[in-house]
Order: sequence, then structure tokens, then C-alpha cells
Amino acid sequence: MQSYRLSGSGAGLAGLRTISGEVPAPGPGEVLVAVRAAALNYRDLLILDGGYVLPVRADGVPLAEGVGVVRDVGPGTGGSAVGSRVVPAVFPRWQDGPFTPAVADQLGGSLDGLLTEYAVLPAAACVEVPEFLTDAEAATLTCAGVTAWNALTGGRAVRAGETVLTLGTGGVSLWAVQLATAMGATVIATTGDDAKAGVLTRLGASAVVNYRTAPDWPAAVRELTGGRGVDHVVEVAGTLPASVAATAFGGQVGIVGFLGAAAPIDPYAVFTGGVTLRPLAVGSTAQLAELVRVVAAHRLRPVVDRTFAFDRAPEAFAHYRAGEAVGKVVISVSSTEGR
Amino acid sequence: MQSYRLSGSGAGLAGLRTISGEVPAPGPGEVLVAVRAAALNYRDLLILDGGYVLPVRADGVPLAEGVGVVRDVGPGTGGSAVGSRVVPAVFPRWQDGPFTPAVADQLGGSLDGLLTEYAVLPAAACVEVPEFLTDAEAATLTCAGVTAWNALTGGRAVRAGETVLTLGTGGVSLWAVQLATAMGATVIATTGDDAKAGVLTRLGASAVVNYRTAPDWPAAVRELTGGRGVDHVVEVAGTLPASVAATAFGGQVGIVGFLGAAAPIDPYAVFTGGVTLRPLAVGSTAQLAELVRVVAAHRLRPVVDRTFAFDRAPEAFAHYRAGEAVGKVVISVSSTEGR
Amino acid sequence: MQSYRLSGSGAGLAGLRTISGEVPAPGPGEVLVAVRAAALNYRDLLILDGGYVLPVRADGVPLAEGVGVVRDVGPGTGGSAVGSRVVPAVFPRWQDGPFTPAVADQLGGSLDGLLTEYAVLPAAACVEVPEFLTDAEAATLTCAGVTAWNALTGGRAVRAGETVLTLGTGGVSLWAVQLATAMGATVIATTGDDAKAGVLTRLGASAVVNYRTAPDWPAAVRELTGGRGVDHVVEVAGTLPASVAATAFGGQVGIVGFLGAAAPIDPYAVFTGGVTLRPLAVGSTAQLAELVRVVAAHRLRPVVDRTFAFDRAPEAFAHYRAGEAVGKVVISVSSTEGR
Amino acid sequence: MQSYRLSGSGAGLAGLRTISGEVPAPGPGEVLVAVRAAALNYRDLLILDGGYVLPVRADGVPLAEGVGVVRDVGPGTGGSAVGSRVVPAVFPRWQDGPFTPAVADQLGGSLDGLLTEYAVLPAAACVEVPEFLTDAEAATLTCAGVTAWNALTGGRAVRAGETVLTLGTGGVSLWAVQLATAMGATVIATTGDDAKAGVLTRLGASAVVNYRTAPDWPAAVRELTGGRGVDHVVEVAGTLPASVAATAFGGQVGIVGFLGAAAPIDPYAVFTGGVTLRPLAVGSTAQLAELVRVVAAHRLRPVVDRTFAFDRAPEAFAHYRAGEAVGKVVISVSSTEGR
Repeated sequence: MQSYRLSGSGAGLAGLRTISGEVPAPGPGEVLVAVRAAALNYRDLLILDGGYVLPVRADGVPLAEGVGVVRDVGPGTGGSAVGSRVVPAVFPRWQDGPFTPAVADQLGGSLDGLLTEYAVLPAAACVEVPEFLTDAEAATLTCAGVTAWNALTGGRAVRAGETVLTLGTGGVSLWAVQLATAMGATVIATTGDDAKAGVLTRLGASAVVNYRTAPDWPAAVRELTGGRGVDHVVEVAGTLPASVAATAFGGQVGIVGFLGAAAPIDPYAVFTGGVTLRPLAVGSTAQLAELVRVVAAHRLRPVVDRTFAFDRAPEAFAHYRAGEAVGKVVISVSSTEGR
Repeated sequence: MQSYRLSGSGAGLAGLRTISGEVPAPGPGEVLVAVRAAALNYRDLLILDGGYVLPVRADGVPLAEGVGVVRDVGPGTGGSAVGSRVVPAVFPRWQDGPFTPAVADQLGGSLDGLLTEYAVLPAAACVEVPEFLTDAEAATLTCAGVTAWNALTGGRAVRAGETVLTLGTGGVSLWAVQLATAMGATVIATTGDDAKAGVLTRLGASAVVNYRTAPDWPAAVRELTGGRGVDHVVEVAGTLPASVAATAFGGQVGIVGFLGAAAPIDPYAVFTGGVTLRPLAVGSTAQLAELVRVVAAHRLRPVVDRTFAFDRAPEAFAHYRAGEAVGKVVISVSSTEGR
Repeated sequence: MQSYRLSGSGAGLAGLRTISGEVPAPGPGEVLVAVRAAALNYRDLLILDGGYVLPVRADGVPLAEGVGVVRDVGPGTGGSAVGSRVVPAVFPRWQDGPFTPAVADQLGGSLDGLLTEYAVLPAAACVEVPEFLTDAEAATLTCAGVTAWNALTGGRAVRAGETVLTLGTGGVSLWAVQLATAMGATVIATTGDDAKAGVLTRLGASAVVNYRTAPDWPAAVRELTGGRGVDHVVEVAGTLPASVAATAFGGQVGIVGFLGAAAPIDPYAVFTGGVTLRPLAVGSTAQLAELVRVVAAHRLRPVVDRTFAFDRAPEAFAHYRAGEAVGKVVISVSSTEGR
Repeated sequence: MQSYRLSGSGAGLAGLRTISGEVPAPGPGEVLVAVRAAALNYRDLLILDGGYVLPVRADGVPLAEGVGVVRDVGPGTGGSAVGSRVVPAVFPRWQDGPFTPAVADQLGGSLDGLLTEYAVLPAAACVEVPEFLTDAEAATLTCAGVTAWNALTGGRAVRAGETVLTLGTGGVSLWAVQLATAMGATVIATTGDDAKAGVLTRLGASAVVNYRTAPDWPAAVRELTGGRGVDHVVEVAGTLPASVAATAFGGQVGIVGFLGAAAPIDPYAVFTGGVTLRPLAVGSTAQLAELVRVVAAHRLRPVVDRTFAFDRAPEAFAHYRAGEAVGKVVISVSSTEGR
């Protein structure tokens, strides 16, 4: 089987190479999955460039997010069935409850990831996905989808009737628009490009604010809420001072990550604004199962920007790094099965 | 002004009489409301018949639920504006948090209610309602609507993607169908009359079970959930053993009330079923404000079965008691203003 | 090594026999534990008698609760260290969050238990215990201790200053007295024997009610709270109507189990009393870790009624069944190691 | 009666003057309270100096925190009894639930405060206090005590067995030491003066770190927790970067206020540290009632640094401003009653 592997930390795209190897066998509690598709997240660029905050296996297989089909099961794997199409949790040992250091191993980081034809994974970390999703769509659930779900339901959970602010058109943000809409919230979304507003409203956003043409976009967001501010922000960009300024007293900013440098936060603004800041990192297998349930119930179709073939994986990274993608950048692995 | 008043506890419909009086003046923190419409709830029958569990003013004005327009404000009433259309919380002293004996006074019970042309009410208990609702629709918010909202959001709150079971076509149940749907839940509803299934599906129910033609309706409900059971029940009927049987392990039955005698509960069934039983009584002013927000965001229109004129109030009680109403029975008071 | 095993379901004490076998080897993610002590719970009597509600391995090793020392570790067991003294979670696959059918396998039930010299257990389910506890004391943590902790902290968690009611002097109840006291709650305990009141007050109970001499003990409990009722009950006995009657409006009864037949519950009493009923079954590995942390911080010493030698295990069952134990009945296994 | 009043915003201590006036009469829902003692908080300095963030009545009576005896009741004041000793909530309209702008009026800010012989207050905002507390002690409950309670129980509530970090020996921090100890938590406290360590350990702290002799005190705190970090910080000082550095992954920093300039927060540190920041402002009347309950159950005696006579009030402000107080600075008003 073919796998991509890193050649040392921080080698960048040049360090990505393909390796041939034997298809592994699942041990007790494990399943063998034939990967169908894997998707890129911002963390994968950081890992490639050597700037990731968590431990990374120097010669590991990249990518935390993907989907595949169970081809074999080891002993004691409970209900896992050969032939079922599953997504594995990014932190496969994180079953439920809060994140702890004991469950910190992650796919495409300290563990081998999914940019490979076959992967052996814990059965308990795999959740079956509904049929109506394409492989590319299903490949966006475990990292971008779960992160958005955790941001909206963790801590102070979003209630129907509340207002949620999303930032831009990356994978997590588009998932947040769809999920917050499914939860009955009103969504205000930002973008830097009016041409991208259409996808946001199509997914459920009731208003879109262009942060380039409205530099004081927090004020614009506040105005859309009758001056009150939003109840929740899914903060993916590192624009925390602005996000806090857009939030109602008693609201919550879920800190999901940073695109580049992050502005420091003024504690007075947090205090007088009455805004709780809640950092989060993806989510548990239980949250993944909840996400799959809501996706199935609402037949949500996530937004795939573009799908690349397995042997064009480096182009996928380059496209994603360019920052113009609307939704997810996916690498199809399925076509290579059966070779 | 004209008001209906009880003539002693337990006198039934015959004890309902109209009284003329002076329009009262609002004191500090109070507003004068010209009532536009009031709605009936099961508790009002119990009060009429002398079987209500909480204290009742023997010569009180009936009905806890209604809508009106602010005509005058006393000193220190904050943002309350003359001319705004408002709904008063059933427990006007219950601001937020759990119910306590200190806030147990309720409209149409220990306090005068809303079957009157004018009522003086605490400003802090009045919530402005959106324009798109008719008076009759708005009159159903504070008791039936808030009860449904409390059942769905209190304790273990319903999450998008979960399944909710509602029972019958009374006011609380129809509100529960609409609100659970707005929250992104899947709704299964029961009815004893196939002719009423249409309104349930129109409001959002994905499946309707006829409890007459399917006497083992908990099994039918379970089958609709792939054997798992529902996550929540809004229990209005006193059919607790059946509701517990229809609920998934870890689920919650919100106990809202009883229509007649209630079957005793087998503690083993509760224990082995892993079902939490959570009694609740209407809700706080804060919950009323949340309800109004979600109603506004989703432009929810509650179901009004029939509206009676003020001088036909006894007919409204009789119609409601017959038990065939689908949705709320409302008494219009507005037409009498200006006399 | 020696193990006790059942000989078929429902054979009672006569079906308990010792079997010799090879010491097993731990697989991936597993540890080999030399058992030092195991403790009895009411479920073990039900399993012996064939009346247990969950699946039981017909020839399984009994007992869910115990302590041992890690003697060997399989590959991929993280921080597990040979020589550490650990307690394994009763449901070894239940990591955190709510109980689900996927984690229902339990020691001494569908899985082999701890009445054996050696056991192979998942490393992730084992929690290290503090040195100051004797083996017999540590053996009471995972079932009785975790059940009490879950009852007090799950759902509506006990707050410092609230009042908790415990019933009798069994293992869960004595743990509940100690833990509720450590949490800053006021504890009222019942007993049927004034001679047992001393241990209850020594563990922290501020008042003890004799349910034999005060047949209307719920009224006596209520009086001790100034008429208000308690905030929490840890209900182990099946006396739900009385427990509900002793509980304040807005309080919670945690249903832990039943000693014999359980009286049916009147739904009106639950509704008008405003009492939430929350069934629970032991707890997760995360809850076990929390329990160990609070035990260590407060140096809590659980109450051991009596310890029996490994070869006297049937006598331990007989003693426990007699129902006079105050605290836990333990079987020492440690003495047999090294044979 | 005599009252202190401000003479315009920002006039400092010089603007504090005494005024004679008539004893007011309570209106509907109000009580007349003869103030016995009032206590100072940092906000009172800011108000005096014109730097407070919330609206302040230019000629208002200062001080939000105090205790008094009910001397008269208006109509409709429920259970309020003449002669009972009560403490009024700082935000008298905030009954329960989260803070909202609708309940933002506060004593000694937009409303007249308690540095006066008599005050008219809403009956619903007054909570009776236990007899064992002196007037000076009781005067410290509503602001310092409630703030500490809200920090420890709001958001992610402290659990028994967790570790709490407090900063310095001001009123809120000493309350936090006592309350966290009563809740069964382990407390680590900081101080800049070893001579003050004794009071911290006497109140329950298990360890005290001197932030002057250990400039990297977050590292010292972490070491005391075995490297893990604390679960909660009650952040009163504006040292947020250090507090975040001392906190375990998944922990919470409750932001209570700032003593002087506050260092900006690095969002990466918050994110990679997994630390939730939760700002809070005092607490509701319900939280005050909970505090009184736990104070009564544990017979907690708050720390009073020094008590000044009513006519020496300016000296009390000067002493408090000097920053050397350990515990609360109180002004006795009781002696003047009966003049």
C-alpha cells in the first residue's frame, strides 16, 4: 500500500514523500480501514512547517481528518462491521468528557494519520457515517465538523433563538454556519470577499458582514443585533479583541485557533464586556457521534472546495495554503483501493 | 371595567360571574395593561372545580395566560413603554433560576388573572411580543409556550439531532412540537385521532403514532428510533409508565401535568431504563423572554383552536373541557376596550 | 493461580467454586494485576441468585470491586507502571460522560471479575490509589465509592451548604456520608438501629433518624431542615415515596438501587414535590479518578465491616447476605500472592 | 438621620460629606433598614476617584455592602419581618440567573448605598443572616463574599478534591480561601508578605506562596500541584498571564477585578493552556442566599481587618486605600441608631 510520510519536522512540502508498505493487521480492539478520502486543516500546515504546538511523529503519516471503509476487524471490537463506512476521531483515545493529557495522542500528529491507503484504528474511535454523504463530504467531519460542534455546544451551549457569529469561509466556519442554523440560532457571518457571501447565506447565515469594507465590523455586527451583540463567536482567526467587542454581555467566544499572529487581549474589555473566553481543541468521540447524528437528521452537506487525487496531494497542500478555499480541501484516496 | 371572578372555590362554571369595577392605577414598578386576549389551560378547569394543588384566591379573576397593551406605568418601571404589547409571566415574581416558594404567587391563582379588561402587573414580569403574532396567538405564550420551552431546555436540554416525543394535540404539546423542531430535534408525536395527524406534521413532527390503533405505542415509538428510544418526552398526560418505556437510556421525561388520573411508576423501570424524571411548573420570566426570542427568530405561529368573545367566556370553558380542542382555546378581551 | 467462578446462572452460593489456571498475559493496552482485595456489593448477591438485570457470564469470576498491584504491562499502556497499586473501573470501557450501551461490559458480570489472584484489565480503566489506604479500604472505591460520588455530583450536583439524606449503613450510604461531608454539605442519615448511629456521626452526619422508632421518618427529616426538606437523597433502599416526601422542592433523588421490593411511585407526589428522580449506575473511570482525588485530599478512610480470607469467600457472601454489615464486606486476596 | 453622600463624581475623599435628612418610608415591596455596618470594596475607591466603569449617581450615598435591621415594612413584602437582621444584594433587582443590563442598578453606584443610618431597600433583595456573625462580619457578605462564591460556583463549579488558587489577602481572596475550603477543595494562596501567611493557613490554605520572594510564582504553584496546575483561580489582581500559567489544562480563571493596571493576555497562552476565562460581577440575590446558607452551615467567620466609627468614615477609606488591610475594612453605623 502507498502512504505519504513526513521526512522530519519542519521540512515543509518538500518533505512529503510516498512510501510503499504492507497492509497492516488490526490487533485487539482495532479495525483496518481502507481510507477513501482525507481533508486538510490549518494544523496540517503548521505540522509541515514545524510550528505545531503538540508533539508530532517525525516520520508520521499526515492528516487527522478522513473517512474510510472497514476491511478487517481484530478481536473484541464489539459492533464494528466489515464494510461499514466510518470516520475516526482525531483524538482516538478521547471517548467523552473534557480533554485530558491522557488522551492527547492524535492522528496525523503523534500518531500516523490518514493520507494513506490503509490505516489501523481503534474500533471505539470509529463512527459510522450516513450514506447520503459523499466520501469527500464525510472526510470533513472529524476535525472541522467536530470543532464547530464543540464550539457551539461546549461550555455555554447555543440555544435556539440566540445569535452566533462566524468568521470567514474556512472549513470550521462553514460547518459552524450550518450547525448553528440547524440548532435554531440566527447566524451572522463575516467575509472579506462579497463574492463569498452567497455560500454563507445559502448555508443559513441571515446576514453577512464584509470585514474589509466595514473595518469596524464588530460595530456592524452589533448593529445587526439591535446593539446587543452576539451570544456566541466561533473564533478561528485570532481576532479576539474584535470578537469580544461584537459579543453581548454574558456571551461566549469559543477559541478554536489562529490564522497567523493573534492580537493580545485587553482584560478590561473581557471583564467589562462580560465575555467568557473558552478555548477548545476539536472534540471527543462522543461529540463526533453527536455531530453525525445531527448531520443525519438534517441531511447537512458540508462544503467541499476542491478534491485532489491521491498522487496530487502536494498540490492540495499548496492550494489550501493559498488561503482562497471556500470550505474544505480534500484528497481522494479511494480510487487507489484494489491496486 | 368588566372582569370575570370566581365565587368561591369549587363552584364550577356556575361560579363564574362578571363584575364591574374601576380601572386600577399602577403603583411603583407596576404597569396597567389593557388585556387583549386570554387563554385557557388545564389548571383553569381544576381551579374552577376546586381541585387545584396550589392556593387560589376564592373570588379571584381567572386565567393565567394572556396578552395586553400597556396603558399606563407607575414610577420606577424602567423601560416599560405605554403602547407596547406585552405578555406577563404566570408567576410574576419569578425572574430567573429555579422555582422557589418565594415566587409561588401566580396569575389566576393566588393573584388576580387576565379574564378582565384591565390588569395591574409588575413591569419586570412583562415581556414585549413581536408584531407578527395575532393577539390570540400571543395569548398562548406564557403558560403553554413557557411550559413547553422549560420542558425542552431545563435539566438536560434537548440538543439538535436528538429525538423528542410529544403526546396529543393540547396547547403545551403543539408548542413542544414547534419548539423542538426549531431547536433542530426530530419530533415523534402521538394522537388518538388520525384526523389530527396533519397539524402535527405541519408543525414539524416527522412521525405520528396513533395510541388508539397502536395500544403498545411506546414500542411503536421505539421502533421509529431504531430501537433506541427517544431522548426526551414532554409528558402532559399522566402516562408515565408508557413514556418511560419509550425513552432511551439516559433520556429525560419532563413531567408537565396530568389529564385525569396518573398511573403509578415502577421504580425498577425508571432505574433499569436509566430515565430521569423531571417535574416542572411553567417557567420563569427569563424563560418567557427566551421563548419570545425563539418565536421571533423563527416566526413561529402557535395553534389557536378557537377564539370566543369576552361575554362568551363560559362557552370557552365548556368547549375546552370537552377535550376535543387542537391547540389553544382563547377568549378575546380586546373588543371591549374603549367602552 | 486460583480463581472463584460461578457454575451457571442462579446457582447461588453452592455454585461458587475455585478453579486453578495459568496466570494470563496482558495484551496491547492491558495490564496484569495481582489482586489484593475484592469487596461485595448487592449486585453480587443478585448475580449469584440469577436475578441480575444485566448480562452475566455464566461461568464468570465474581465481584466488580477490588484493588491490586500491576505486575506486568502489555504494549501501548501509556503511563501504567509495574508495582503501582490500582483500582479498575467496574465498567472498564466507560471512560467519561454518560453511560451508554457501548460501554456496558462490567467486571464480575459480562466480564470476569476480581475474586481471583490475577486479572488482566485495560490500562486505561485503572486508577492509582493513595498509599494511606489499606487494601481492604481501597477495595471499596470502584463500586460503592463511585456510586456515592456519582449520586452526589451527577445531574444537579450537591453544593456546599446543602443538605443530603443517606439511608442506612451499607457501603454506598457510608461513602455518601463521608463524601457529602467532604463537599461541605450537611448530612442527615437514617438507620434502623441506634447502635449504628455512632459510626454515622463519626463519618460526618449531623443528625441520625431511626426509621424504626420514627415510622414517619420523612417528617422527622423535614423537621430537621426547618420544614424545607433535604436537597439530595442517595436512595439505595427502594423507599422512593418516603425519600420524595423528605425532599425539598427542586431537590433530587439519586436512585442507586433497591434492597428487595421497591414501592411504586405516585407521580403526583413527584410533580407537586418538584423532585427530580435520577437513576444512576456506578460511574465512569473519570468519576473514579475524581473520587480518588477527593479521597486523597481529605484522607478519607472508608468503613470496612469485616475482611475474610480468600478461601473463606463463601462465608463473606453469607455474612453480607445477612444484612447486618456496617460498611463493606471485603475478601482479602493478597495473602495468596507468591504461592 | 445622617448619611454620607458624594459631591459629584471624581471628587475623591474630599467630596465625601455628611448630610442630615428625614428617615424615609418604605413603599410597596420595600423595607426600611437601620444600617448597622457597611464595608469597603475596591469599587468604592474607583467611584470616589471617578474611574468606575458603571453609572454612578453624582450625589449618591456610597458603599454597596453592609448589614442592618428591618425597622419597617411596606405593603406586599411577603415574609420580611421587622427586627430581622438582613443583608441586601448589591444589585437589588438581580434575583437569579445570569446578570443582565435590566438588573444593573447597584447600591452605592446608580442607587444610594449603605453609608447611612437608614436605607429603603427592596424586600426581595434582603437575606436574613445568622446570629453568630457580628455586624462587622455580616457586613462583608454581599460584595466580597458573593463575589468569591460566584467565582467558585459559577461556570465550571469547583468540586471537592480540586485545587483553587487565591491571590493576596483582600476581602474577596480571604472569602475565597474559606469558601473553597468549605467546598472540600485544596487551596493554594499567594501573598507578598510572609507575615500574612498565617491568616491564610488558618482559614484553610494548605500552602502559601510569596510572590515577592518567588517571582515565578506560577511555577511554584504548579510544582505544588505535581506539575498539573490548579483547577480554578479567583483572579482579583490583574495578573492574568501569571494566573493562566498556573492553571491546569481545562481549568478556569474567574476574573473578579483589577488592582491597578492589568497585563494584556496572550491568546496563544489561553488556547494552548486550555484555560477558560470567565469574568463575573458580584452575584445575584440567589447566590447571596446560597452564601448565607454555607456560612451558616460551616459557621464561617469572615476576616475583618479593622472597624471604624461612622464619623470616622474618611479614615476608613484612607486606611483601605493604603492597601495593607488583611480582610475587610468596615464602618460601624449601628452605634448611631436611636439618636
